[in-house]
Amino acid sequence: MVKAVVLLSGGLDSSVILALAQKQGRECFALGFNYGQRHVIELEHAARIAQYYQVPLRIVHIDPCIFKISSLVSDLSVPKNRSLAEIGSGEIPNTYVPARNTLFLAYAMGQAEMLEAQEIYYGPNLLDIASYPDCTPAFVQAFQNILNVGTKQAVQGHSPKLIAPLINLNKEEIIRQGIALNVPLQMTFSCYDPLPTKEACGKCDACILRTDGFAKVGENYHNTKSI
Amino acid sequence: MVKAVVLLSGGLDSSVILALAQKQGRECFALGFNYGQRHVIELEHAARIAQYYQVPLRIVHIDPCIFKISSLVSDLSVPKNRSLAEIGSGEIPNTYVPARNTLFLAYAMGQAEMLEAQEIYYGPNLLDIASYPDCTPAFVQAFQNILNVGTKQAVQGHSPKLIAPLINLNKEEIIRQGIALNVPLQMTFSCYDPLPTKEACGKCDACILRTDGFAKVGENYHNTKSI
Repeated sequence: MVKAVVLLSGGLDSSVILALAQKQGRECFALGFNYGQRHVIELEHAARIAQYYQVPLRIVHIDPCIFKISSLVSDLSVPKNRSLAEIGSGEIPNTYVPARNTLFLAYAMGQAEMLEAQEIYYGPNLLDIASYPDCTPAFVQAFQNILNVGTKQAVQGHSPKLIAPLINLNKEEIIRQGIALNVPLQMTFSCYDPLPTKEACGKCDACILRTDGFAKVGENYHNTKSI
Repeated sequence: MVKAVVLLSGGLDSSVILALAQKQGRECFALGFNYGQRHVIELEHAARIAQYYQVPLRIVHIDPCIFKISSLVSDLSVPKNRSLAEIGSGEIPNTYVPARNTLFLAYAMGQAEMLEAQEIYYGPNLLDIASYPDCTPAFVQAFQNILNVGTKQAVQGHSPKLIAPLINLNKEEIIRQGIALNVPLQMTFSCYDPLPTKEACGKCDACILRTDGFAKVGENYHNTKSI
């Protein structure tokens, strides 16, 4: 059975990729990250999703010292009430966390070597590409190259494969995919700024994209409240 | 003044690259890592070197959970008394730590974005290439590509440059470089297995390469005892 490391945040996208990996028959190992994010509550959702799919979840703690220029890890204000056009404008918002996905994938790379996993699943989508340089196809290819040259597995002739199944999909399409796969979407959580109430703010980019996606599908699994 | 993030372990090689970066006129910021390594004492040497060069040193804590297949982070025995031919054989020893350098560089990448640093210095050398896939010229190029596509700095047209000044030098040449630059080599420490006495074991690959390098130079700054 092919083993796969799956980056799991507890949000919609990563839950769908976990379901996809399982459907491919992979033995999955989920990896979540506590990096001092203000929406650390997402990890409780990750734990529920992992339990639902009966896969082990490891939470890695990342020293947030280098992240303090992001609103997700500091007192900066998270942008609110942006239009879809603003969100997709191509400007990098302050929710960008420097080097975050490179760190996540580096941890996944180490985990893959430990487990002798042959695949790493990670969930950037079409909407992320405009705003986040570490969510683009070029970045996926660049990190695949790191796996191809920088691992013991590569030297042994079997580099792990980096799989980003959502990279060409928008939120509506991801939700449709999730519904088709019976992903428990109501368990997922997608808000950048749920403090102090632990309720989704409804106004940050993550909430707006989620709400818009569900509206287009005609479903109603908005996350207004966390666990 | 161009800012540079310098990976500093407290060993010989990284101390020389710090000196090189300063000689280039860079404003240096040193980054050290506590990843549960058995030779964590090296960080005290890093602190001394940083103080000597009057540069700030940040120690990042890395969750060692993914590293447990390395003898540097587990109860596995560190290889001892290997000949120079064995050390250079091309086999990957169990002192290899999966994904370690990718993680180090990912943290450096985030730090560079925070500081708006334009350069990252890291110290793999000619002898590392045979044993460690994440110390090769191909790996340096692959990580440069990550910096070129996966950062906000790249989007803004000024990707940080990854500089590996020792990659074509053996230990003797690095020591000669260090002496020419007046690096306080006696402050550096290069042993994988200094426990429980905090003395260099004299038998691990790091000790053997260091001793051999100094012997060839005719100098006597062996590290027999740590701080």
